[in-house]
Amino acid sequence: MTSTFLDAVNRKNKNHIPVLFMRQAGRYLPEYMKLKDVHSFRTRTHTPELMTEITLQPMRRYKMDAAIMFSDILTCLEYMGAAFDFTGEGPKLATAGVSTLKEIHKLDVKDMSFVYEGIKKITAELTDRPLVGFVGAPFTLCSYIIEGGTSKEFLKTKNFMYSSPKDFHKAMEILAESVGNYLAEQMRTGVEAVQVFDSWVGFLNEDDYRTYLLPHMKNLVSLARKGGKPIILYSQPASHLLPALKEVGADVYSIDWRMKLADAAKVLGDNVAIQGNLDPAVTTLEWSEARPFVDRVLEDAKKAGIRDRYIFNVGHGVNPTTKPETVGSIVEYVHSK
Amino acid sequence: MTSTFLDAVNRKNKNHIPVLFMRQAGRYLPEYMKLKDVHSFRTRTHTPELMTEITLQPMRRYKMDAAIMFSDILTCLEYMGAAFDFTGEGPKLATAGVSTLKEIHKLDVKDMSFVYEGIKKITAELTDRPLVGFVGAPFTLCSYIIEGGTSKEFLKTKNFMYSSPKDFHKAMEILAESVGNYLAEQMRTGVEAVQVFDSWVGFLNEDDYRTYLLPHMKNLVSLARKGGKPIILYSQPASHLLPALKEVGADVYSIDWRMKLADAAKVLGDNVAIQGNLDPAVTTLEWSEARPFVDRVLEDAKKAGIRDRYIFNVGHGVNPTTKPETVGSIVEYVHSK
Repeated sequence: MTSTFLDAVNRKNKNHIPVLFMRQAGRYLPEYMKLKDVHSFRTRTHTPELMTEITLQPMRRYKMDAAIMFSDILTCLEYMGAAFDFTGEGPKLATAGVSTLKEIHKLDVKDMSFVYEGIKKITAELTDRPLVGFVGAPFTLCSYIIEGGTSKEFLKTKNFMYSSPKDFHKAMEILAESVGNYLAEQMRTGVEAVQVFDSWVGFLNEDDYRTYLLPHMKNLVSLARKGGKPIILYSQPASHLLPALKEVGADVYSIDWRMKLADAAKVLGDNVAIQGNLDPAVTTLEWSEARPFVDRVLEDAKKAGIRDRYIFNVGHGVNPTTKPETVGSIVEYVHSK
Repeated sequence: MTSTFLDAVNRKNKNHIPVLFMRQAGRYLPEYMKLKDVHSFRTRTHTPELMTEITLQPMRRYKMDAAIMFSDILTCLEYMGAAFDFTGEGPKLATAGVSTLKEIHKLDVKDMSFVYEGIKKITAELTDRPLVGFVGAPFTLCSYIIEGGTSKEFLKTKNFMYSSPKDFHKAMEILAESVGNYLAEQMRTGVEAVQVFDSWVGFLNEDDYRTYLLPHMKNLVSLARKGGKPIILYSQPASHLLPALKEVGADVYSIDWRMKLADAAKVLGDNVAIQGNLDPAVTTLEWSEARPFVDRVLEDAKKAGIRDRYIFNVGHGVNPTTKPETVGSIVEYVHSK
């Protein structure tokens, strides 16, 4: 498969700038909402046919340069002793807290076979563009297990990390090994790249990241490497963490909308690709209003000198108020540049 | 009044490192909870006697180097056409949204007389240490008016800012002028410094900050300057905004726990004081567990060479799970260094 997305990942893209959107398969699409009305969140993520259909919905509608498998960053937790469900606005764990975290066990990657079935079905149908797999990173998974859902300040998680470093490291070991092996298995089954979502790690400072997470993130990457496909790392806000994140050794860094692309490129160096940078709020605008902000990102990419290794994306997932028409216009416009 | 806090603000402190804690008067103190059980939030913030009592509670318990008047960053909104109340976890506006924002009017600073009454009572009782006043910054106030409460991504606020820049600037003008005049009046009544809380502005990137906010923040500062007392500016996360925040022209920059003090000092230069940097999660630990993290901040302040212009504080407000004993130990320990 020739792929502009993979060429950019491999820092040798001479074609158009590839585009994908985090959460491109999701609640802003009417065709997704129809399925959401009929099938529960668990059914949607656990049924290979539904996973396939939902993953392909934005691929039919738009010329996205890669598909992102429909799943959740937390889906594996159920098979490690920390089941969750979506109730209303976000994920909620049935039992949460430090005691739940202390009882999690390593993931048997075979338990995720429904995901691999989905990957096989998607790649059988989608032959012209690559599929990207993903999972949540250890700190982010841990924060959900302890807080029970999203959190404003992650006080319980940090309290545990600071007060029980030995137990925290033990949990991180289990999570990093599980996630690393799961990503390698996704790769073996057919995804062409994976993204590790450390959505909440930006609530730590650099010293803490190095002390509590960096060794585990390196271990995660070395295990995922056995699958032989490139690894994308996402964090936000991450301006202050970038030098430490660089040491994780990912192939692509997915940055939020706060950092300037040139600043990120300066810290990360020439040997990685860079993804992201559009404020997701821009996708809630009409195209005529959105265009100057898309131009700004493209201009910044040009200034940063990363044309051959840049993937256009939002700096955080698109959301229910994202306008489908604006997404379409952004894809076409970026491709035309 | 000789004050270590004010000496540090004025970049000439030769005494101990001054300490205060954002939200030092609040829900982690049992004596506060007793009043909370009896009086509503509105009564607590609108009754000069209660405001005085609550402000002084931490001053009796600890050797804090300054009092922070008990109020809310949103208290003035009621008198601008956007009343709010605390329901459960955070502030909720009775009517919120773009239409509410469009209808706000300039604050008549006389309407805040109950706050000035409180300031007079506090300064009459507290003769050995200064009092700090405060208010929310225009962007943060605007985000509450539009979103109706705290928000995860501020999508509605940004959508309005991007799609209706003229109306957004008009609202910012009203808010900046109101807030600037209100701060000057607090100063005239007796506070020795004020803090401007731009708690959520870190969700913008630097370009947007410069386009949509910087002129209004400069105007706010020039109006507050008429009161003749120093101005502290707080934002988080702000690593990526610091060069623009510097141009606001505050006297003290209150930074969160993510940035290194040395990095902040490098960007901000020698002509401002710096406050903050302790992760509020540290205050939820036992003192023996908390101490290394306090040491790290003190060590970082030393490395940054800001001993004469540094105020020890948390990087975001203390919270209900903060341990009162740990706060006491931190104050004593920092003073001993």
